[in-house]
Amino acid sequence: MAAIGATAGGGVHRLTVSDEDRRARDLLVSWLREAGVDVAVDEMGNIFGRRFGREDSLEPVLTGSHLDSQPLGGRFDGTLGVMGALEVLRTLRDHDVETRRAVELVDWTNEEGSRFAPAMMASGVWAGALDRDWAYARTDVDGRRFGEELERIGYRGPAPCERRPFHAYYELHVEQGPRLEHAGVSIGAPRGIACLHWYDVHVDGVANQVGPTPMEGRADALVAAAGMVLAVQETPARLGGGLVATVGELHVAPNSRNVVPGRARFTVDIRSWDDDLALSAWESLSEEFARIAAAQGCAVRTEEVWRVQHNEFAPGLVARVRDTARRLGLSTLDLESGAGHDATYLATVGPTAMVFVPSIGGRSHVEIEDTSWEDCEAGANVLLQCILASADEPGPPEPA
Amino acid sequence: MAAIGATAGGGVHRLTVSDEDRRARDLLVSWLREAGVDVAVDEMGNIFGRRFGREDSLEPVLTGSHLDSQPLGGRFDGTLGVMGALEVLRTLRDHDVETRRAVELVDWTNEEGSRFAPAMMASGVWAGALDRDWAYARTDVDGRRFGEELERIGYRGPAPCERRPFHAYYELHVEQGPRLEHAGVSIGAPRGIACLHWYDVHVDGVANQVGPTPMEGRADALVAAAGMVLAVQETPARLGGGLVATVGELHVAPNSRNVVPGRARFTVDIRSWDDDLALSAWESLSEEFARIAAAQGCAVRTEEVWRVQHNEFAPGLVARVRDTARRLGLSTLDLESGAGHDATYLATVGPTAMVFVPSIGGRSHVEIEDTSWEDCEAGANVLLQCILASADEPGPPEPA
Repeated sequence: MAAIGATAGGGVHRLTVSDEDRRARDLLVSWLREAGVDVAVDEMGNIFGRRFGREDSLEPVLTGSHLDSQPLGGRFDGTLGVMGALEVLRTLRDHDVETRRAVELVDWTNEEGSRFAPAMMASGVWAGALDRDWAYARTDVDGRRFGEELERIGYRGPAPCERRPFHAYYELHVEQGPRLEHAGVSIGAPRGIACLHWYDVHVDGVANQVGPTPMEGRADALVAAAGMVLAVQETPARLGGGLVATVGELHVAPNSRNVVPGRARFTVDIRSWDDDLALSAWESLSEEFARIAAAQGCAVRTEEVWRVQHNEFAPGLVARVRDTARRLGLSTLDLESGAGHDATYLATVGPTAMVFVPSIGGRSHVEIEDTSWEDCEAGANVLLQCILASADEPGPPEPA
Repeated sequence: MAAIGATAGGGVHRLTVSDEDRRARDLLVSWLREAGVDVAVDEMGNIFGRRFGREDSLEPVLTGSHLDSQPLGGRFDGTLGVMGALEVLRTLRDHDVETRRAVELVDWTNEEGSRFAPAMMASGVWAGALDRDWAYARTDVDGRRFGEELERIGYRGPAPCERRPFHAYYELHVEQGPRLEHAGVSIGAPRGIACLHWYDVHVDGVANQVGPTPMEGRADALVAAAGMVLAVQETPARLGGGLVATVGELHVAPNSRNVVPGRARFTVDIRSWDDDLALSAWESLSEEFARIAAAQGCAVRTEEVWRVQHNEFAPGLVARVRDTARRLGLSTLDLESGAGHDATYLATVGPTAMVFVPSIGGRSHVEIEDTSWEDCEAGANVLLQCILASADEPGPPEPA
């Protein structure tokens, strides 16, 4: 799969609903057919591969992730979760295992959101959080619409994109951070996904020629912004609680070597398991920004861009991931996911859990993203055993 | 003149050797002809308007500045120095004043350097510091060559662009800073131009996804760069001596809201009358940059881009500017120019001085740049009297 959209740097460039994505989907569909499962594509391009169960009218066990990548992204990312699910289906076939419930692989369209915002778009529509026609109308930088591109690659399917009840959803994914590696363990059992708060900050100073403008009396927007960047960086250590706060993007105007910066604009990203802690971090930062701006003779204005509350997975399924790994002799770590995944939306409509495997050096969304084959195998085995356990359960869906 | 390239914001957009520059030149030439002076254009497009002297073989008195502007620049800037010189020529004619030496107005091509780098290009060629054919080959962002554009607008003249001996060069200019206004005086008599040191600083960290990457162990290039920006800002107060140090330009990569910045690149501009002080400021900053980078787990690399030593004007002419202003009942301030001017190159080849008038709010290179008409008149009167004094001096050129 990594050969499709392969980059010189060892990664993949496989943007959603691109020609590369089409080739990846075609390959997945051919593998699903080989595995003897029933393939369906819905109107958001989500691909389902259903292996029927003994009591096929019971809610199925869903498992999957996404095949699309970031620009110059890594080979693993969501692909591991789709390939892991395929490996589960093949293993069940190879061993003639009959499950009570159906086991259904899913490749969610446009998890990355880097070509068409937002991220996790098709799982969002499936879960009822996003509107299908709104998603169709989203455009990329060239002005092309998502819906037309989906049609173009031949994956605007006939099945409605709407939630069907499921017994459990398991998603195998690389951690994308360094915690498993640092702890020296193979399997992470995330209890859910941290909250996510996005802000924009605008600083206005006075642009002026560098040479003739003395230091006294300047209103340098970049100097003010630099103080704010450091304030953001220092906040997590001050507040504790596993808070993460980052300025990822900064723009300076006029951004000219011999002009005192008149304007600066930057983003703030705050994540925490504790929504209130994230809010109080922002309140404290807002006050600090005002103080810093005033000291530099600048004005500051902040804007709330996006807030998503933290999202808990089903405790029973999380425990099953942890316990299954231990039973297989694998070391585990309880943690939270700092990044969003398709599991974010799935968790809002049914029992959901994820299986994390270590990212070497904690790197992700880069071409050198890597995970050892041993860890991939371990993750896929945990996935298999969790699916087997859930798929043999009788009766109603597990409580979320 | 301000009507040519006038902008909605009250400024001018009159880039060098553009159609607007051609119209400004045509207007200047028609005014020079009306004033009865001899017009010559050299091969760099410099326009000279010579009013003959009684002893015309003596070195002339030169005076002028430039008509080109920054993108969305001010109406005054260099234009005031050309219009002031024209007003001097007209006044001499209106009053039938015969001077011993010729008085020669000059409009230097491409002082701003914002379309074709470097700045002060044609006065640099004239003074022998820059090569004519190298200048011809300079390109703008659209790939057009300076020499061809000069030809296109019809101002690639026949006269060689090379230094002719001159008795004195006077340049009237707006201060472009706030010091005259703060001191409440009308005339500045700069003793010369501060040194100018330009550096590029490259910071390398590790880009990573924001969410899953804990604060501990990050190598955030923007956090390191922010600390360095503050270090630059704090250096002048620490070292004193009228030092000015600025980060005008900062670039972050990948500059994405949810990615820890992996790289940052910024510029440092240091100016001082004291070249050694500027050098020691840089040495101290370099050490501080290394410390800050190491503390953030980043690497830092610095690059020297340009160094120009401070440049002293002719003390006798500077004193004449100051004394003439006082005799006219005007208040004066001794200062240095923090910005470069065509006078920078002229001062390297002959006796040179400048006359500064206040910039309202210290603003320049912006559309709202302004100077009161009283101050313009005062500056033009000082220019006139200085020119009259120099133009009547007998014998050899004044010592530089």
